[in-house]
Amino acid sequence: MRDKNKQILLARRPQGAPEPGDFELVKTPAPEPGDGEFLARTLYLSLDPYMRGRMNAERSYSAPVKIGGVMEGGTVSRVEVSNHRDYAAGDIVIGRAGWQEYALSNGAGMRKVRAGNLPLSTALGVLGMPGMTAYTGLLNIGQPKDGDTLVVAAASGAVGGIVGQIARIKGCRVVGVAGSRQKCRYVVEELGFDACLNHHDDDFEAALAAACPDGVDIYFENVAGRVLRAVIPLFNFFARMPVCGLISQYNAVGPSGEPDHLPALMRAMLTNRIAMRGFIVTDFAAQQDDFLRDVGRWVADGRIKYREHRVAGLEAAPQALIGLLQGENFGKVIVEVSPASG
Amino acid sequence: MRDKNKQILLARRPQGAPEPGDFELVKTPAPEPGDGEFLARTLYLSLDPYMRGRMNAERSYSAPVKIGGVMEGGTVSRVEVSNHRDYAAGDIVIGRAGWQEYALSNGAGMRKVRAGNLPLSTALGVLGMPGMTAYTGLLNIGQPKDGDTLVVAAASGAVGGIVGQIARIKGCRVVGVAGSRQKCRYVVEELGFDACLNHHDDDFEAALAAACPDGVDIYFENVAGRVLRAVIPLFNFFARMPVCGLISQYNAVGPSGEPDHLPALMRAMLTNRIAMRGFIVTDFAAQQDDFLRDVGRWVADGRIKYREHRVAGLEAAPQALIGLLQGENFGKVIVEVSPASG
Repeated sequence: MRDKNKQILLARRPQGAPEPGDFELVKTPAPEPGDGEFLARTLYLSLDPYMRGRMNAERSYSAPVKIGGVMEGGTVSRVEVSNHRDYAAGDIVIGRAGWQEYALSNGAGMRKVRAGNLPLSTALGVLGMPGMTAYTGLLNIGQPKDGDTLVVAAASGAVGGIVGQIARIKGCRVVGVAGSRQKCRYVVEELGFDACLNHHDDDFEAALAAACPDGVDIYFENVAGRVLRAVIPLFNFFARMPVCGLISQYNAVGPSGEPDHLPALMRAMLTNRIAMRGFIVTDFAAQQDDFLRDVGRWVADGRIKYREHRVAGLEAAPQALIGLLQGENFGKVIVEVSPASG
Repeated sequence: MRDKNKQILLARRPQGAPEPGDFELVKTPAPEPGDGEFLARTLYLSLDPYMRGRMNAERSYSAPVKIGGVMEGGTVSRVEVSNHRDYAAGDIVIGRAGWQEYALSNGAGMRKVRAGNLPLSTALGVLGMPGMTAYTGLLNIGQPKDGDTLVVAAASGAVGGIVGQIARIKGCRVVGVAGSRQKCRYVVEELGFDACLNHHDDDFEAALAAACPDGVDIYFENVAGRVLRAVIPLFNFFARMPVCGLISQYNAVGPSGEPDHLPALMRAMLTNRIAMRGFIVTDFAAQQDDFLRDVGRWVADGRIKYREHRVAGLEAAPQALIGLLQGENFGKVIVEVSPASG
């Protein structure tokens, strides 16, 4: 095995929605760890919407993936061979090994995952980056108070589902938005949201307004597009708007044909004195212990549920990311790269 | 005199830009103060962009002026007759007596203005609502730091001029935007801004980018429209955006014909982790003493300058507001309603 390292590279920058040909699967010799390094075998790879941004050349909060470079991504891996004094073969580590079966590490950006009662893959989901994104964005920027109404889209997804469940714990009325009737049913019946609307429905705007009879105090922005436009007229005074993602825009090329909605947003910002703030999870890195303590307890208590969308094999990752960007997943997307017990 | 109270009423709600026929000048008997009341004669009336919003029926942070109601506005007045134990004839008071020569008050919303070295009208400008709007919005939301670059439009106006001068005091590079070459010259030469661009110029966007070689850390939003669109590509990481006004939109009717600029703003908010917040000055009412102390000292020291655009007579107020909304004023608009020494 060790002389066959499957990797998925960025072959070219997508125009609009990524296509299979934007990725390239290669097999290279697995690298040999030098002094102070270890070789890790990827067990689980997390797929997340932000990856679409890394495929572009444009400046963002992180540097783009280079053409011919290994696609980036968060991973849970098992140490296979170690020349690093802090790591031993068999250790389970979380880090950013990317879209590949084997990766070398000197330990930077890696940390060991303690074996608990939950599946290891939760370190990439509810107890990982998406969960911490939900927790920190909601609590720091959204500032939920008892009786507030919160709206969150991608409500059955890795971030939206956690946002809504934490907001419920904080006493909010929680209205989700998702892309199918099946997802909405899950969001209400399993996750305990007060309501969930399908953004494909013709009467979505009216249904959202009806589901928010007291207006909207927090809009946790995952998607932009039609959902954002529907929320703008519903904002209450002093509403808060954490901006976490804009998935409906990520594949956009050129103007949408929509009229200019910027004036309506600005008018709402001013007349309602709304606070909007973009963030990424690393802005709140200092709150990692709080997050693991609180969300770990809520998951253990059954107050927070999560759902994984498992994909088998690294080869399936490109199509899974393409689908994720179109809302085809149902839950946190986890690629099973190597057998966890293997 | 006292049986002739000139008042200007809202005759009808404007469609787009206000017209003279949207206002009505009436003469009514001056009211007689009852027990616990005083009669105040308006010396100065402040005209401000927010008044356009009050002429609409739509929900905002304040209730609209009723059709047939006296137009609202901040005033400096002199007590003429008093049956109120805390006020005596001759006292100078600041409050919201509106667009009229005489007003009754029971003291609510009024406070006495101390005679100082500055003209009484400054209580409506640099040391009044516009100055406090600039001070509180900039310091609380803009959070200027040494070396930041700030952009502010309506830079020769009542708020923008103070924003830029305070930002200079705080060590910022300050770039103004105004509507004429003459105003820009004043903003740079008199107010000490580092640069000022004319938003009517064909190459405005390029000129703004050139004037902000290190990007934009604070955009104090007074105007929206073309200026906001030009700033969006220039934002730095963790930029701040106090939203104080949107004067370019106030007269808008229907869609502008512009393509949708909302996606570009949202992308900038997320990738730069920008904090945007709408506010009105009363949100920071508790900071009045700080404001008067700091800005009073800066004006006394000559570090903050201001300019008034004086208009003679209440009859001139409608046309002056119409002009203000089109950028025809040059400085803080003050209507001289009654002779200050009369």
